Amino acid sequence: MIKACVAGATGYTGLELIRLLLQHPNIQIKHVTADSNKGKRLSEVCPSLTGVFDQELVALEPGLASDCDVVFLALPHTASMDKVPEMLQAGCRVIDLSADFRLHEQEVYETWYQTKHQSPELLEQAVYGLPELHREKIKTAKLVANPGCYPTGAILGLAPLMQCDWVHLDSVIIDSKSGVSGAGRKLNTGTQFCEANEGVSAYGLTTHRHTPEIEQELSGLAGKNLSVVFSPHLMPMTRGILSTLYISLTKEMSVEAVLSHFQNFYRDEPFIRLLPPGQYPATQRVVRSNFCDLGVAVDKRTNRLIIATAIDNLMKGASSQAVQNCNLMFDFPETEGLEGVPVFP
Amino acid sequence: MIKACVAGATGYTGLELIRLLLQHPNIQIKHVTADSNKGKRLSEVCPSLTGVFDQELVALEPGLASDCDVVFLALPHTASMDKVPEMLQAGCRVIDLSADFRLHEQEVYETWYQTKHQSPELLEQAVYGLPELHREKIKTAKLVANPGCYPTGAILGLAPLMQCDWVHLDSVIIDSKSGVSGAGRKLNTGTQFCEANEGVSAYGLTTHRHTPEIEQELSGLAGKNLSVVFSPHLMPMTRGILSTLYISLTKEMSVEAVLSHFQNFYRDEPFIRLLPPGQYPATQRVVRSNFCDLGVAVDKRTNRLIIATAIDNLMKGASSQAVQNCNLMFDFPETEGLEGVPVFP
Amino acid sequence: MIKACVAGATGYTGLELIRLLLQHPNIQIKHVTADSNKGKRLSEVCPSLTGVFDQELVALEPGLASDCDVVFLALPHTASMDKVPEMLQAGCRVIDLSADFRLHEQEVYETWYQTKHQSPELLEQAVYGLPELHREKIKTAKLVANPGCYPTGAILGLAPLMQCDWVHLDSVIIDSKSGVSGAGRKLNTGTQFCEANEGVSAYGLTTHRHTPEIEQELSGLAGKNLSVVFSPHLMPMTRGILSTLYISLTKEMSVEAVLSHFQNFYRDEPFIRLLPPGQYPATQRVVRSNFCDLGVAVDKRTNRLIIATAIDNLMKGASSQAVQNCNLMFDFPETEGLEGVPVFP
Amino acid sequence: MIKACVAGATGYTGLELIRLLLQHPNIQIKHVTADSNKGKRLSEVCPSLTGVFDQELVALEPGLASDCDVVFLALPHTASMDKVPEMLQAGCRVIDLSADFRLHEQEVYETWYQTKHQSPELLEQAVYGLPELHREKIKTAKLVANPGCYPTGAILGLAPLMQCDWVHLDSVIIDSKSGVSGAGRKLNTGTQFCEANEGVSAYGLTTHRHTPEIEQELSGLAGKNLSVVFSPHLMPMTRGILSTLYISLTKEMSVEAVLSHFQNFYRDEPFIRLLPPGQYPATQRVVRSNFCDLGVAVDKRTNRLIIATAIDNLMKGASSQAVQNCNLMFDFPETEGLEGVPVFP
Repeated sequence: MIKACVAGATGYTGLELIRLLLQHPNIQIKHVTADSNKGKRLSEVCPSLTGVFDQELVALEPGLASDCDVVFLALPHTASMDKVPEMLQAGCRVIDLSADFRLHEQEVYETWYQTKHQSPELLEQAVYGLPELHREKIKTAKLVANPGCYPTGAILGLAPLMQCDWVHLDSVIIDSKSGVSGAGRKLNTGTQFCEANEGVSAYGLTTHRHTPEIEQELSGLAGKNLSVVFSPHLMPMTRGILSTLYISLTKEMSVEAVLSHFQNFYRDEPFIRLLPPGQYPATQRVVRSNFCDLGVAVDKRTNRLIIATAIDNLMKGASSQAVQNCNLMFDFPETEGLEGVPVFP
Repeated sequence: MIKACVAGATGYTGLELIRLLLQHPNIQIKHVTADSNKGKRLSEVCPSLTGVFDQELVALEPGLASDCDVVFLALPHTASMDKVPEMLQAGCRVIDLSADFRLHEQEVYETWYQTKHQSPELLEQAVYGLPELHREKIKTAKLVANPGCYPTGAILGLAPLMQCDWVHLDSVIIDSKSGVSGAGRKLNTGTQFCEANEGVSAYGLTTHRHTPEIEQELSGLAGKNLSVVFSPHLMPMTRGILSTLYISLTKEMSVEAVLSHFQNFYRDEPFIRLLPPGQYPATQRVVRSNFCDLGVAVDKRTNRLIIATAIDNLMKGASSQAVQNCNLMFDFPETEGLEGVPVFP
Repeated sequence: MIKACVAGATGYTGLELIRLLLQHPNIQIKHVTADSNKGKRLSEVCPSLTGVFDQELVALEPGLASDCDVVFLALPHTASMDKVPEMLQAGCRVIDLSADFRLHEQEVYETWYQTKHQSPELLEQAVYGLPELHREKIKTAKLVANPGCYPTGAILGLAPLMQCDWVHLDSVIIDSKSGVSGAGRKLNTGTQFCEANEGVSAYGLTTHRHTPEIEQELSGLAGKNLSVVFSPHLMPMTRGILSTLYISLTKEMSVEAVLSHFQNFYRDEPFIRLLPPGQYPATQRVVRSNFCDLGVAVDKRTNRLIIATAIDNLMKGASSQAVQNCNLMFDFPETEGLEGVPVFP
Repeated sequence: MIKACVAGATGYTGLELIRLLLQHPNIQIKHVTADSNKGKRLSEVCPSLTGVFDQELVALEPGLASDCDVVFLALPHTASMDKVPEMLQAGCRVIDLSADFRLHEQEVYETWYQTKHQSPELLEQAVYGLPELHREKIKTAKLVANPGCYPTGAILGLAPLMQCDWVHLDSVIIDSKSGVSGAGRKLNTGTQFCEANEGVSAYGLTTHRHTPEIEQELSGLAGKNLSVVFSPHLMPMTRGILSTLYISLTKEMSVEAVLSHFQNFYRDEPFIRLLPPGQYPATQRVVRSNFCDLGVAVDKRTNRLIIATAIDNLMKGASSQAVQNCNLMFDFPETEGLEGVPVFP
């Protein structure tokens, strides 16, 4: 039984982490932090937890790490990066759900996030926490940078292709559709019910900060620098991301051949589900689980490959993936605490 | 480890049962039935279960009971009542989620459901499966009639008052608001997305079949025949029932005194959560859990008591309550497999 | 062609007013105000109006009234009551969509709204703008207090009964279900998409400020002071209010007799639609229109009358009712600009 | 005042047509047909029309055309194509909202729709009813094939580029997101509330029947045969289509230059709204209007052009476009009856 601190417990990813950790047989929640609500019980701020988890919220201080084995940082970017060194020094391992340690290059971070990095010396040792790609490194990592929600769905759909000579690597287009919880819990006109309900919108075209993260991982797999088009969209639903991915084929491929290649690539992966030809993912079928569903179509008329992936943005796109990483880091079975069946309807 | 059969596996309550049983440490799913889809794998019909539960669907036959300890009947009313005797004879216990065995009086059943009862001899021995009221009887029952979704929320809110001389027992009004999944999975114009979305409607005023069920239980507690007003409404959401309950006071009561009475009544109940004065339930805070949240207001100006309860209609209103009953029947800890935290958001 | 000023143009009721006035053949929008966005074009703040209405927003000043025939005040309560006297003096008529002039008694206002009234001398001359009850007074009113959204649906359902000896006037219970737009456009955690979506909640039980407004109007009709129970609920939809109204019968009445009484009461009303026995209102069928749909049930078992009404809270519950009042005040056909068919789906 | 027949009055596009025609100053509805509900009043089948339009439904027969100037066919494909010749012979003009006359090539129709065309001799004279492209031909057309919902949004976004040497015409990708009403009103498991709610899914990848329609129109503009990738997605909302369109640039272009080109192309178009750089469409801002909003982004890093368009699928994507066509055919002002402001929220 290891001890964990959840920093940022009242945001959506923090709440989801707590829900998952409460059901995990080998992790005990030691501290929950929320600076703006310190002194209150978490269940006061989030009544769904009444009688389930009534622990008091404290302020985030590096000292909290001293009696913990792992700290989950579920905070906005920049909010905690200066505190991580001290936590690591205390012998605690850190899983950061923000973007602060995802990008290996300080300059790329500072360009896209328009802010100076406070702990650039840690960028090199931080491991990008996508188990399907970096499982071995995660096991021994002190600091894991948990992937962004959009990158998780996009990278998982494209990773198997990055070493294939039958695709044009420079032709990648990522069209993603996200539920509103991806925008977090802070007050915002655009995420008020009456504004977001019953409508779909494109936003952040060509400028979304998840772009360099996707490019870093795909480039790493391809062995050369890639640029991608990434277009996020806001959907009138609480959870889920569907990413539709387009890439040009250099030669004719059958959908069966492509699927067989994917099957090979993801052999034995517990959380990747490949759909048969003619079936495509629906976020309804993965929400509240750690699954990533993946379907493939080949457009023979235009010689394009179309891949669609579905994840729950708060689960595989954030908190359950963090638990998956934690399982790897502490040598628990990778699926422990993550066996939850997708809840439909 | 007991063995269970889930009949009607492809409906919403059947699917929910399977999801719960898969997470239950002491129950193994032996058979899943769906006459219209027999021969298919359940995951073909419900892709969210792919890789999680791929068992083949079979037709419902009494013989299935022979190698099971318990059968969960998640079927429409009348669909299985003639098969129950044989199942019981085979030594199997039955939890029926339909309405067929909820009403003690054959005549009341036949009047409200407009159909002849096929196994009236079992009505007497069937136990109404609301653990908060009938826990001891459930433990030894061979046949448990799992309560309806509306009755669960209504009865739990009103039961503590039935022996109080400070309320007018003949003044009960129940105004309930249900998500669309309460209507089941069968095709229906009114439950098509574009028809139910963005709208609230009243239906079945004065004629809803859950009325006699509520009256039977409240009358039993009161020790005399009661009639209630019950008005169901359809809400544009998938899950959840909020019931707002009105009853007249015979004398002045403070909200604190009423709450204290409720607290006494529900002392040690693991799934009832009483909210403090001034707070009222929201279905968002209970969905995907077995909780019933309960809030109380006293309207001093009109001398009325207002009680609001929130449940998940597919959980405490159906499938997780069935598991709670099963736990009691087989002497498992009552909360086993039901520890799931409400999923918010 | 009269000239109108819309104060508070960027809120939901303000936007709805503008949409309606743009389609009105006899009203021209002269000024639109929004203090926090003055200098911007309305279409910048609300892009749905791009190319339709690009007028510049100005600050609210009483002087704006000088070249207008009518001012619509679509502001939060207390925001404008001190400016109304000057507007009236300028010879302009005022339709106030806030609560400030709805209550005849200064003391009742100050008790429920916890604030001092700035223009109490106007309370007596203000006319409560429910045309179905006060048509003649509205025609000549200088200051019309446009009814609240909840009171509109509740009063229209109960008004026909206030002179009947076959109901118990002291038994009124109003259970209302409102879409989220009723909470206005200001930022609020509870009305963020992920918080309000997929859930129903009770709020403000026994304390909602629309209570005295309903009581004032019903008492006026009954000729004696009445108290009512009023319970508002928040629904996961943008528009619409369904009110379910309960009142005890003093004698047996058939639903046909009750409906015939309602038909008489509302004879020739252009915006009241009575549904036949066994049919009940659905907000889907009235949204984006000025209609109030009304259905009736008699619960013979408990001797209660149940009435359900459906309106669009931003239309008949606010802005289209304001236009209806304006039509009366300026002797336009009462339905002018309000012929819009409910938009379904 | 011309006389119109609406065939298929009880479907979503039929209902929308009736709503629009009731508000049109120069069109009178003479007949409404619905074979399955003939003899009933339309308002019985669709209660939102009670008191607004209570006309009796009749069966569709070619003879109905004899006393009409125009017939709107709002029926599924194949349902009426054999009746069109007789209607045209009777001197009546026809606006067909189905797919039956949209494709010029009989073979293309029969391949994609897997059915024999009943009136292939009319394919040549049928005019594709997208006013922005074919205004002059529509004016004199006897038979107008009203465009599909997806094609309308896709073609309007891409048409301005088809003669540009700065784009690769063979690189078009269309990623469209549609509300559920696009699937029509027929019963279907996938469009039941609980199945479609809270989820996004891809469907019909590479096989959707709107593909050849888009290709025909773009090819016509380009002067050569084009193939496109078209990927439709189902959104949890009633109305609206957002199409995100991707095309490769052959040289560097600024977003301002692209927008200026679009501005030129759509100069004086009453229903096309171009958004300024950095702003992208949201379906919320166009629903219940005939507008098509269009935003543009240039991805300099990948040299791609991204265009997003938003329409209401039942309006510009179906019924209000049909009215726009009717206005052109009968020499009414093109915007007549279509001045409705988008209804937000």
